[in-house]
Amino acid sequence: MTTGVWLIGARGSVAVTSMVGATALRAGLAEPLGCVTELPELASPALPGLGDLVFGGHDISDITLEKKVENLVAAGVLPARPAAAVADKLDGLQRELRPVPSAETQLEVARLVAQDIDDFRRRRGLERVVVVNVSSTEPLFTAGPAHESLSALSTAMGTPGAVLPPSSLYAYAAFLAGCPFVDFTPSTGTRLRALREMAAEAGLPYAGHDGKTGETLVKSVLAPMFAMRHLRVRTWAGTNLLGGGDGANLADPAARAAKSGSKQRVLAETLGYQPQGSSHIEYVDDIGDFKTAWDLITFSGFLGTQMRMEFSWHGCDSALAAPLILDLARLTAAAHAAGRTGPLTDLAFFFKDPIGEVPHALADQWARLAAFVRGLAHD
Amino acid sequence: MTTGVWLIGARGSVAVTSMVGATALRAGLAEPLGCVTELPELASPALPGLGDLVFGGHDISDITLEKKVENLVAAGVLPARPAAAVADKLDGLQRELRPVPSAETQLEVARLVAQDIDDFRRRRGLERVVVVNVSSTEPLFTAGPAHESLSALSTAMGTPGAVLPPSSLYAYAAFLAGCPFVDFTPSTGTRLRALREMAAEAGLPYAGHDGKTGETLVKSVLAPMFAMRHLRVRTWAGTNLLGGGDGANLADPAARAAKSGSKQRVLAETLGYQPQGSSHIEYVDDIGDFKTAWDLITFSGFLGTQMRMEFSWHGCDSALAAPLILDLARLTAAAHAAGRTGPLTDLAFFFKDPIGEVPHALADQWARLAAFVRGLAHD
Amino acid sequence: MTTGVWLIGARGSVAVTSMVGATALRAGLAEPLGCVTELPELASPALPGLGDLVFGGHDISDITLEKKVENLVAAGVLPARPAAAVADKLDGLQRELRPVPSAETQLEVARLVAQDIDDFRRRRGLERVVVVNVSSTEPLFTAGPAHESLSALSTAMGTPGAVLPPSSLYAYAAFLAGCPFVDFTPSTGTRLRALREMAAEAGLPYAGHDGKTGETLVKSVLAPMFAMRHLRVRTWAGTNLLGGGDGANLADPAARAAKSGSKQRVLAETLGYQPQGSSHIEYVDDIGDFKTAWDLITFSGFLGTQMRMEFSWHGCDSALAAPLILDLARLTAAAHAAGRTGPLTDLAFFFKDPIGEVPHALADQWARLAAFVRGLAHD
Amino acid sequence: MTTGVWLIGARGSVAVTSMVGATALRAGLAEPLGCVTELPELASPALPGLGDLVFGGHDISDITLEKKVENLVAAGVLPARPAAAVADKLDGLQRELRPVPSAETQLEVARLVAQDIDDFRRRRGLERVVVVNVSSTEPLFTAGPAHESLSALSTAMGTPGAVLPPSSLYAYAAFLAGCPFVDFTPSTGTRLRALREMAAEAGLPYAGHDGKTGETLVKSVLAPMFAMRHLRVRTWAGTNLLGGGDGANLADPAARAAKSGSKQRVLAETLGYQPQGSSHIEYVDDIGDFKTAWDLITFSGFLGTQMRMEFSWHGCDSALAAPLILDLARLTAAAHAAGRTGPLTDLAFFFKDPIGEVPHALADQWARLAAFVRGLAHD
Ligand SMILES: NC(=O)c1ccc[n+]([C@@H]2O[C@H](COP(=O)([O-])OP(=O)(O)OC[C@H]3O[C@@H](n4cnc5c(N)ncnc54)[C@H](O)[C@@H]3O)[C@@H](O)[C@H]2O)c1
Ligand SMILES: NC(=O)c1ccc[n+]([C@@H]2O[C@H](COP(=O)([O-])OP(=O)(O)OC[C@H]3O[C@@H](n4cnc5c(N)ncnc54)[C@H](O)[C@@H]3O)[C@@H](O)[C@H]2O)c1
Ligand SMILES: NC(=O)c1ccc[n+]([C@@H]2O[C@H](COP(=O)([O-])OP(=O)(O)OC[C@H]3O[C@@H](n4cnc5c(N)ncnc54)[C@H](O)[C@@H]3O)[C@@H](O)[C@H]2O)c1
Ligand SMILES: NC(=O)c1ccc[n+]([C@@H]2O[C@H](COP(=O)([O-])OP(=O)(O)OC[C@H]3O[C@@H](n4cnc5c(N)ncnc54)[C@H](O)[C@@H]3O)[C@@H](O)[C@H]2O)c1
Ligand code: NA
Ligand code: NA
Repeated sequence: MTTGVWLIGARGSVAVTSMVGATALRAGLAEPLGCVTELPELASPALPGLGDLVFGGHDISDITLEKKVENLVAAGVLPARPAAAVADKLDGLQRELRPVPSAETQLEVARLVAQDIDDFRRRRGLERVVVVNVSSTEPLFTAGPAHESLSALSTAMGTPGAVLPPSSLYAYAAFLAGCPFVDFTPSTGTRLRALREMAAEAGLPYAGHDGKTGETLVKSVLAPMFAMRHLRVRTWAGTNLLGGGDGANLADPAARAAKSGSKQRVLAETLGYQPQGSSHIEYVDDIGDFKTAWDLITFSGFLGTQMRMEFSWHGCDSALAAPLILDLARLTAAAHAAGRTGPLTDLAFFFKDPIGEVPHALADQWARLAAFVRGLAHD
Repeated sequence: MTTGVWLIGARGSVAVTSMVGATALRAGLAEPLGCVTELPELASPALPGLGDLVFGGHDISDITLEKKVENLVAAGVLPARPAAAVADKLDGLQRELRPVPSAETQLEVARLVAQDIDDFRRRRGLERVVVVNVSSTEPLFTAGPAHESLSALSTAMGTPGAVLPPSSLYAYAAFLAGCPFVDFTPSTGTRLRALREMAAEAGLPYAGHDGKTGETLVKSVLAPMFAMRHLRVRTWAGTNLLGGGDGANLADPAARAAKSGSKQRVLAETLGYQPQGSSHIEYVDDIGDFKTAWDLITFSGFLGTQMRMEFSWHGCDSALAAPLILDLARLTAAAHAAGRTGPLTDLAFFFKDPIGEVPHALADQWARLAAFVRGLAHD
Repeated sequence: MTTGVWLIGARGSVAVTSMVGATALRAGLAEPLGCVTELPELASPALPGLGDLVFGGHDISDITLEKKVENLVAAGVLPARPAAAVADKLDGLQRELRPVPSAETQLEVARLVAQDIDDFRRRRGLERVVVVNVSSTEPLFTAGPAHESLSALSTAMGTPGAVLPPSSLYAYAAFLAGCPFVDFTPSTGTRLRALREMAAEAGLPYAGHDGKTGETLVKSVLAPMFAMRHLRVRTWAGTNLLGGGDGANLADPAARAAKSGSKQRVLAETLGYQPQGSSHIEYVDDIGDFKTAWDLITFSGFLGTQMRMEFSWHGCDSALAAPLILDLARLTAAAHAAGRTGPLTDLAFFFKDPIGEVPHALADQWARLAAFVRGLAHD
Repeated sequence: MTTGVWLIGARGSVAVTSMVGATALRAGLAEPLGCVTELPELASPALPGLGDLVFGGHDISDITLEKKVENLVAAGVLPARPAAAVADKLDGLQRELRPVPSAETQLEVARLVAQDIDDFRRRRGLERVVVVNVSSTEPLFTAGPAHESLSALSTAMGTPGAVLPPSSLYAYAAFLAGCPFVDFTPSTGTRLRALREMAAEAGLPYAGHDGKTGETLVKSVLAPMFAMRHLRVRTWAGTNLLGGGDGANLADPAARAAKSGSKQRVLAETLGYQPQGSSHIEYVDDIGDFKTAWDLITFSGFLGTQMRMEFSWHGCDSALAAPLILDLARLTAAAHAAGRTGPLTDLAFFFKDPIGEVPHALADQWARLAAFVRGLAHD
């Protein structure tokens, strides 16, 4: 089941780590750590193999993969050995990357993007292509009447001017090309009524939003712990220090607002109330991709006794995200193959801000994910 | 359903916090924080009410409850207000406490202990009494031939000398009195073939071992998180600084050995392998009941990238343990009422070192606990 | 040497903790922990005794001292025992507190404030009065031509409208009353050319700015450590979570800006360069006066090896500040008695943002402080 | 002023990092971070230049420098770039390393060691050689009558059997060869009356003990901070997790005892009393040279208010130690050139357990070090 993975933001840290990593895994250079679909509980013949994934994508940057890999090795994101071992594969990967097309109207841009994806599918003889957005986080976006129905949207897109933010434009293009769409970023993506309508009409599945790789992952197990023990969380305040491309982009307060929002949702959802405190993001160039997060949690127990917990997390964001990209591509491809359409709410396990009324406790999300995979096998 | 709770170590911190707390809750002086059986998901008419619990117990110490409460308030374990509000109830509670009887043989001691419990039940007109061990942790104990069968044991107990450690002697006495037994400590308790035989013959349920209140509780959600994300934990090393009565007792290396053992089991059980590092316990008088634990976790992700997490936990041990004593008493009483016998493995949620082949991930333990409570209601 | 301490913000947390604390110390109810002038190295007959201090002050709030003390006890700032022991002294203290006078022009207000201080001195038969600002942090203030000379300032103050921020108005009034002025806040205070001129003319000493009680105190020893070891600090990023009155006030971004500025100065001054990262302040009501600060420091060593350090500080702000108020009053009174005038740069030890070209490493500040005290004794 | 540096434990992590680092610095491949004698405040023409240092040494291991460097690069201790750049110098360095000689009596061994050192000096035309002990920590050693005088010692050493621990045997040999001796380890070294007598007779300086590179360094600035602020430290408890060669050796309880002792001395010396808590060392292979230390400090302030601080330190032990080896060699050589004899107490800055009645606060040690360097220049 050869499956295309078309990456939006294909020259970024997450995308390149995914592509290089998949290449290294295929060559047997490393264990598939971080890939949850490689766990015995989730392995399934319904999923395309790691070796069946073929990569391509768009990016506005024209940095070479060689240069990007060099940067990622210097930053400690990619270990030197597997990076060196796949050096001769970079040219091949690069040949499948395309610049972002430009045109008079967004409708035309979407058609050109869809064309690129379709060419990729045919050229490489792929059964299907999953489009995955790993491009820079966009500022918060406010929807208007043009986003309420597919017909209103298509009309608006036919005239000059930006009616859709890039993430949603790519989703539109993916659906146009008959491809499932996964949004790993906090951007708008498919979260517009018109796009949901489009996916339904096209019979396509989609998933999102915002990959859960660090502080929020920890929250999704600690918050349920407090809830299960009937301990009242009073304050949950966090600080995230990060650099790298994503960090630089989040130095922009508008992009940061989009991100901070999805980081606190897990608390209200799992505790049933919103504790005090917020999640602060600060750009520190020197930290690079090795994000440091620190959280303070104060809580009350029996007879009101005050207690506290602190944690600090020192994780490599791209190394945590990349294997999930492979997982999401495999799962979404299998869902498409099995005829699933609409939001894949069973993939909530992967996201900070999952679509739909879904559990936010990691263990519950895991149970749903496992059931979903079992279900695919029976289809 | 008036239910007796007979506490072994009844003048200790956990026991007194439980009794004072239950009294304060009954008087509506505080919310039942920390009591999991007060959560909507676990509330059940099958459980005796908090107000139905009647306390008594044994202790080798003769410190007055008044003095003990004063100490607990000074240490910040009991908030001053509810403690003051129940001051006039302490004498009543104290009247139900008994010194540990002594006699020529352990068999006679067991009979005298059972007699005390039985007197309590009749005097207070209780439907049943649950015996809960919250006395000091004992040194590691090695079983011998005399513990292999009930008959061998009873014979040995009939001659002078200590054939059973205190925790097991109390379990024997509880069974003799027809009472379920809960062991909140890491001591031997029911973990002898002869005692399991005795419980089976008497048709009695029992539960244990070692209440899960701090570092291990956190481990039981974080370790599954690493497992679910296919992240390889390399090191998990922890330090526990604690004072108080339990801390002083754990300053004894033999008692500490019993405790450290149960603290690491969760890792091997949830990860499937044993990471490097151990769990260190240090007695620091000044810290008192407000234990501080610090853990370092190093782990490998995609392509072997090295990452790490640290947490520190600053919890009041007795305030975390006391509500669980109330929960365990209610659940065990209900199990007894429903005719359950043998090890209550569905109570694994409460223990560091649960009996039986049970899940160690907190979420799985929770699911079993909830099913157990639902099952009781249907009986 | 009876010495008056006139507190601006006299019903605030720091002020009340100072007054209650001094009263308790005088009554022998506690050791003088936190008071550096009680250390053998700094004790000096040149300083007024702790028992010689007499308190009064202004506040815009009319909360009673009884109520404020109750709040501070509930928040754990004031221990219950000494607070109860001085309860009968609160009325006496309260009689010396005055509302902030109002008038048409700031000049008239200043005269009324000076009048209140002078009345206090005569009524209580004091040798001198030191005015100490512990009122709420003000927004950043920009000076103009009216602040360039004393004559320009006095002219401007004679017409209606606010030409001075409150902290500077109090400094003006203090100088008018012939009193030294200490600014424990990050507000403008004496930092205007016109006020420096006024102090010089009046022959009065003054000190400031912004008491150093937590994160910055730690920075003032850790940053020199990195410097002395020739380790290059790359990132120093911090988060301060605090509630209480000061925290509520700092929830205002303008006030916060004033505070954050003085918190990073120590790094540039002791390292010789400014590392990346900033100092973030977040208001969390539940945290109250028990501020939690967390700092991450990344640094490079031999051959560029990357290393890191984290600390978290859980300090009670008012309990850390109050004894320093007593120290500053004693030291400034002694300096005044010894005829010192102008900025007391030797008191840099106490401040986040000390006046003048002074050392920022705590050990150097300590050496200057000790020499200063020795110098006073010889005058 | 060509100066030899003769390293005992020359194939160990600290030694090899020192030699490779000095070579890289000489080639201009890195800044001299971590070298305190390269700070402007300590630079002095009295010190030999970094480029004047020539290395040699003894080791019981025969691991090649090539292999050792490879290990250090893999462990992240040595950055790959400078390590690669000096690869062609490793053979030259290796030619100056010698196996530890063996003989019937320790006197003969000492003579053979001294002979090796002397050969090195003559072969390389060195003005002087400083012997530096960076070999494995030894178990605690108890002195006896044979160590009370040089004559008793020499007699005892003339008969078969081990009268001296290795560190002291090397000190004896160094003195025999007319060389100053620096002990960077916690082992016995010169701490025997007989050896002090020998150094005095030979007119040689010596320094020690136990390089201060991590947790103790931090303690030496934080403990004075608490003292200067009159804050009462109640608990200071620490955990050190470390792997690497030194860690493996410290897994032995006897060696660990030697090390833990020197780690707590700074507290009693700077605070004037010993707080509760101890310093725990645990061997964790996976941690390698990147030691993680965590310390908890609880303290009382004004009116007894309880506060706390935690820090965690993640430092590369060898990268912190190696530049200090270069500093100590330069300073000791200059002291020898200037005719200093006996214990160099002014080098306390570098040691956890410095010789003599010296300050333990880092700032005071720095002041003495700076004065010492200035003094050398004037000789
Ligand atoms: N790494 C993680 O742990 C993680 C977790 C959750 C979400 N994410 C999200 O994943 C995204 C990628 O993160 P990253 O670290 O790889 O960032 P990055 O900055 O390294 O890469 C983003 C890439 O997107 C490209 N890009 C920007 N705008 C584009 C456009 N309009 N069309 C096509 N390409 C465009 C950029 O040129 C860049 O190459 C971010 O939105 C981030 O918030 C990452
Ligand atoms: N507090 C927690 O979070 C927690 C968690 C898990 C387990 N535990 C266990 O609970 C137990 C109690 O802890 P604690 O903090 O209350 O300790 P504690 O020292 O305050 O109380 C123990 C009491 O047991 C009494 N005792 C000792 N030997 C006895 C005997 N032979 N017969 C009867 N009484 C005896 C002592 O006199 C004392 O009053 C300990 O074993 C501890 O390890 C506590
Ligand atoms: N506590 C510390 O550790 C610390 C350290 C450094 C600086 N400070 C500074 O000390 C000051 C006091 O802190 P706090 O915690 O006591 O705050 P607080 O809010 O408890 O008290 C401030 C008091 O000032 C009064 N006030 C406000 N405006 C006034 C005015 N114009 N005239 C007279 N009174 C006025 C308020 O009514 C209040 O009673 C703040 O500026 C704070 O930044 C405190
Ligand atoms: N790295 C630091 O931060 C630091 C700080 C303070 C003290 N120290 C001390 O420095 C010493 C070296 O540390 P390391 O990390 O390099 O250890 P290491 O284990 O890497 O090296 C020690 C070397 O000494 C050699 N050795 C052992 N016994 C010997 C003997 N009798 N004669 C000659 N050589 C012998 C070993 O073969 C090994 O090569 C240790 O004692 C350590 O406690 C290190
Ligand atoms: Na930490
Ligand atoms: Na911490």
